[in-house]
Amino acid sequence: MKGAQALVQTLADCGVSMCFANPGTSEMHVVAALDAVSGLRGALCLFEGVATGAADGYGRMTGKPAAVLLHLGPGLANGLANLHNARRAHTPLVAVVGDHASYHKRFDAPLESDIDALAAAVSGWVRRASPAGAGQDAADATAAALRPPGQVATLIVPADVAWSEGASTAPPAAASQPDPVPDAAVTEAEAALRSGEPCVILLGGAGLRRPGLAAASRLACAGQVRLLAETFAARHERGAGIPQVERLAYLAEMASPQLAGTRHLILAGARPPVTFFAYPGKPSSLVPDGCQVHMLAAAGDDVHGALAALAGQVAPDARPRPRHAERPALPDGDLTAQSAAAVIGALLPEAAIVSDEANTSGLWLAAATAGAPPHDWLGLTGGAIGQGLPLATGAAMACPDRPVIALEADGSAMYTISALWTHAREQLDITSIVFANRRYAILAMELDRVGAESTGESARSLLDLSRPDIDFTALAAGMGVPASRAATAPQLAAALRRALAEPGPHLIQADLP
Amino acid sequence: MKGAQALVQTLADCGVSMCFANPGTSEMHVVAALDAVSGLRGALCLFEGVATGAADGYGRMTGKPAAVLLHLGPGLANGLANLHNARRAHTPLVAVVGDHASYHKRFDAPLESDIDALAAAVSGWVRRASPAGAGQDAADATAAALRPPGQVATLIVPADVAWSEGASTAPPAAASQPDPVPDAAVTEAEAALRSGEPCVILLGGAGLRRPGLAAASRLACAGQVRLLAETFAARHERGAGIPQVERLAYLAEMASPQLAGTRHLILAGARPPVTFFAYPGKPSSLVPDGCQVHMLAAAGDDVHGALAALAGQVAPDARPRPRHAERPALPDGDLTAQSAAAVIGALLPEAAIVSDEANTSGLWLAAATAGAPPHDWLGLTGGAIGQGLPLATGAAMACPDRPVIALEADGSAMYTISALWTHAREQLDITSIVFANRRYAILAMELDRVGAESTGESARSLLDLSRPDIDFTALAAGMGVPASRAATAPQLAAALRRALAEPGPHLIQADLP
Repeated sequence: MKGAQALVQTLADCGVSMCFANPGTSEMHVVAALDAVSGLRGALCLFEGVATGAADGYGRMTGKPAAVLLHLGPGLANGLANLHNARRAHTPLVAVVGDHASYHKRFDAPLESDIDALAAAVSGWVRRASPAGAGQDAADATAAALRPPGQVATLIVPADVAWSEGASTAPPAAASQPDPVPDAAVTEAEAALRSGEPCVILLGGAGLRRPGLAAASRLACAGQVRLLAETFAARHERGAGIPQVERLAYLAEMASPQLAGTRHLILAGARPPVTFFAYPGKPSSLVPDGCQVHMLAAAGDDVHGALAALAGQVAPDARPRPRHAERPALPDGDLTAQSAAAVIGALLPEAAIVSDEANTSGLWLAAATAGAPPHDWLGLTGGAIGQGLPLATGAAMACPDRPVIALEADGSAMYTISALWTHAREQLDITSIVFANRRYAILAMELDRVGAESTGESARSLLDLSRPDIDFTALAAGMGVPASRAATAPQLAAALRRALAEPGPHLIQADLP
Repeated sequence: MKGAQALVQTLADCGVSMCFANPGTSEMHVVAALDAVSGLRGALCLFEGVATGAADGYGRMTGKPAAVLLHLGPGLANGLANLHNARRAHTPLVAVVGDHASYHKRFDAPLESDIDALAAAVSGWVRRASPAGAGQDAADATAAALRPPGQVATLIVPADVAWSEGASTAPPAAASQPDPVPDAAVTEAEAALRSGEPCVILLGGAGLRRPGLAAASRLACAGQVRLLAETFAARHERGAGIPQVERLAYLAEMASPQLAGTRHLILAGARPPVTFFAYPGKPSSLVPDGCQVHMLAAAGDDVHGALAALAGQVAPDARPRPRHAERPALPDGDLTAQSAAAVIGALLPEAAIVSDEANTSGLWLAAATAGAPPHDWLGLTGGAIGQGLPLATGAAMACPDRPVIALEADGSAMYTISALWTHAREQLDITSIVFANRRYAILAMELDRVGAESTGESARSLLDLSRPDIDFTALAAGMGVPASRAATAPQLAAALRRALAEPGPHLIQADLP
C-alpha cells in the first residue's frame, strides 16, 4: 500500500481516531487515505492553531492522542503555540507534518523551511517517515505520544513517502506504564509529614484527577499537610463530591502567602513552583526560604500510586473529604467579573468541561464553581493565549455527551477565533462566553508590576481593545454560531440557560466594565 | 537609560519608524519606552501573524524595516509564517522578541521555549541583546535587516536587559549597498544574447521595479530575448506606462510551455525556476533540458545596474516599451473569477497597491489589470497563506496616500482575519475583496495533480468551506469594517466604486460559483 495509507491505517489501529486537519498539497495523499482506510476521522480547522489546540483538548479528555495534519513548516509554525501548551500539559498528541518530496527539498521551493527545528521546539519525539517504514513510524509516534506522562510526537512525512507504494501497516506497541515511585521517595515524604513541621503537597497532572485527589485528601484529613493545585493544570477534576484543592495563585503576591511558613513542599505530579514571569528585584522561585522540596512523584511517575502509598503509611484510616454541593445565588445588577462568575457557578451543568482562558476576568471563577456539580477544568498550561476556543473544540469532540463551556478573555479569543467555525461545522455542544472588557487587562496590571509605569498614549493604545469595540456576536454569526450579548447578570443567566438547553454551539458576549 | 529606551531610541535613530506590536508582560518596558522616546510609533495587532505580515508589507513598500514586537517563543511562533514570507520576499524587518529575564530562564516557567531555534528558521541575523549593548544591538539589527537584498533580523531581548539602567543609544551604521555585478557576469549574459539562440531573462526582486524593468525592456525590444517575471514577486511595478512582463505561471503545466525551447535563461534578481511542489514523476526544475542558466545578478546584487550595463552593451539605442493604457469593459452578469477580474481591472485606481492572495480565484487578474493605471503588485512570496490582509495593513501604513486593494481567497483570509480590526483602528484605506468560492479550490485541484484521486467524503469535507458558509460581511462588521456583498459583476463594480470613494477600510465579499 501507499505510505500514506500505511500511516493512516496504523494510526487508526493504534487507537488514534481523530485527526484535526489543515492540510495542503503535500498532504493530499494523507487526506485521500482517510477515505481509503477506516477508523480515523478528519475534522477541518481553518487555522493550524485551532487544529493543535483541538488535539490538545481531545488528548486531555481521552488520554489518547489525536492526530493533527499540518502543511509543511509554515503550517507547523501556525500550530506551534498550542503545541507549546500541549507540551506543558503533557498531552499525548501525534503531529503529522507533510514535507516536500525528499528529492524536491534541495530546490529550496518557496515553502521550504526547517521543519525539524520547529518540531524540536515543542516535541518530545521527532522523526522523518521513511518510504518502507511509514507504518512503523506511525506506530512508534503513537507509542511515543503515549509515553507517560504524554508528549507531542511529530512525524514529518515527505510527499514521496506518502505517495510511494510498498509500505505496510505496523501493530500497536505495548502500552507503556508510568514509572513506579521508589519506596525511598514515599519514605522521604512520610518523614516530612511526620516531622510536625508545616507541609504542603503541591498536586499536578494525575494528582488532580479523582483517584489522586482522594488519596491526597486522606493525607490532608489526617492533618499536618495542606493541599494546593498547580496554577495551570491540564485537567483538574473538581466540584461537589470531589475533594477540593485550592489552586496556587498566578500572582506571586498571592501565591507567596499561600506557601508562607511551609517547611516541606511535597511534589506530586507538579514541578517546583516558580513565578510566571520575572519581576525586578523579586525571586523567581516561589519556594519559601528554609523550605525543603521533596519530589514524591514527577509527572511521568505513578502519581496516584505514590499518593495512595503515602496515605497508606500516614493516614491508613483516613477517608477523603468530598466537597459539599453549593452554588452561588443568581445575582442581580450589572455584569462584573464577579457577578459573571456567580452566574456561571449557579448554572454550571453536571459533567461540564470548562476550557478556561478567562485570564483576569476569571479571578472569581474558582470560588464560584467549587461546589458546582462535578466537572473538569482545563487550564492554560503553557501560557500561550489562543488556547481556549480550540481546546474546547477537541474536548467536545472527545466527549460528545458532555457540555463544554469555553471561558474566554476577549483579547485571547481573537488569536484563534476561527475555532468557532469548527464549533458550527461539527455542531459541538460548546458554549463560549467571551468576557469583553475591551483591553488586555492583564498587561495593564503587568505594566505596573514590572516597574514600567507608563501613562503615555502609546502604551495605553497597545493595551486597549476598543477603537473599534469588537462585536463577538457578529463574528460568531459570521461563522454560523448563534450568539447573544449580556450586559447584566440576569441577561447572562438567561443567555447561558438558553445556550445550555439548545444543542450545538453558542456564544455569549459578556460585556464587562 | 534603560535598555528598552536605548533599544527603541536607537531603532528610531536608525530610521525605524513603525512597530507592529502584540506584546506581553516581558515586553512591557519596550512598550513603555515607546512613550519615553520619540520617533517610533506602535500599532496594535490582535495576532502576531498580523504584525509580522504588516511589517513585511511596510518593508516592501518603503525599503525600510518596520519593527515587530513579539512575546516570547509562542508569540514568535504565531508570527513565523509571515516571517517566512518576508524572508522569501527579502524584506528588511527587525523582529524584537521579548524573553524572560536571563536569570529566570533556568526555572523553565510555563512560557519558556527555544526562541533562538524558532528565530533561526526565518532570520538571516539573530542576536540576544546584552545589558549594556542594547542600543548597539538595535543598530546592528537594523543594519543587518537592511543588508541587500534585505532580511529578517531578530533581536531577542531578555526582560532584565530591557529594564536595566546603564544602556546607551548607538548611531546608525552606514547604509550598505548592493554588490556590484562583476563584468564577467555581464559578458556571459551578453554572449548568450548574441548567440542567436532563444534567450529568456527571468526578472525578480529589483528587476521588477521601474528602473530594472526599463533596462530589461530595452533588451527585449532589441530582440532575441523574452522577459518573464518570477511567479511570486515581493513587489512588481506594473500597469500603463511601465514595461509589461508576463509572470511565470504557478502550474508547471503552464510554466513549461513558457520556457520551452529556451537555450539561455538569464537570472536577474530571480532564482532558477522550480515547481512549487513536487509531483509524482515530474521534474522539480523548470529549466528546460539543454538550457544554460546564467546568473546575471542575484537578489542581493545591483540588479538594475547589471541590466543597465547589459542593455548598454547589447541594445545601446533601444528604448523601453511602456505598456499602453487599456482597461477591460465593465462586465454584466453573474460574478465569476473572470468577471470579477474584469471589474477590478476596469476600476483599479491610479497608484494602487495590490496585496494578492487571490490564489485560484486570481487566474484572470494579471491580464485584466495589465493596462490599468500604474500600480504595485505584492505576491505571496513564501506560499504561507494568511499573508494578504496583514500585508495590506503594512502597505497602507507605509503609503497612506495610496489606495490598497487586498485580493483574498476565502480560505486564506481566515488565517489572519483579525487584521481587519487593525484596518479599522488605523482607518487604513484598504479595500479587501474576499473571493468566496467556499472551498480550498487549489487543493481540490492539487489532490488530482499529485495523483491522490479521491472522491470520498472525508477528503471532500476537508477541502470544503461551506457547512457553514462564512459571512465575511459579518466578520468585518464585528471588527468595525464596513462591508458589502456582491453576487453579480455590476454589484461588485458598485461596491468597489463605493469603497474606493470613501476613506477608511472596506470589505467586499465576492460570491463566486
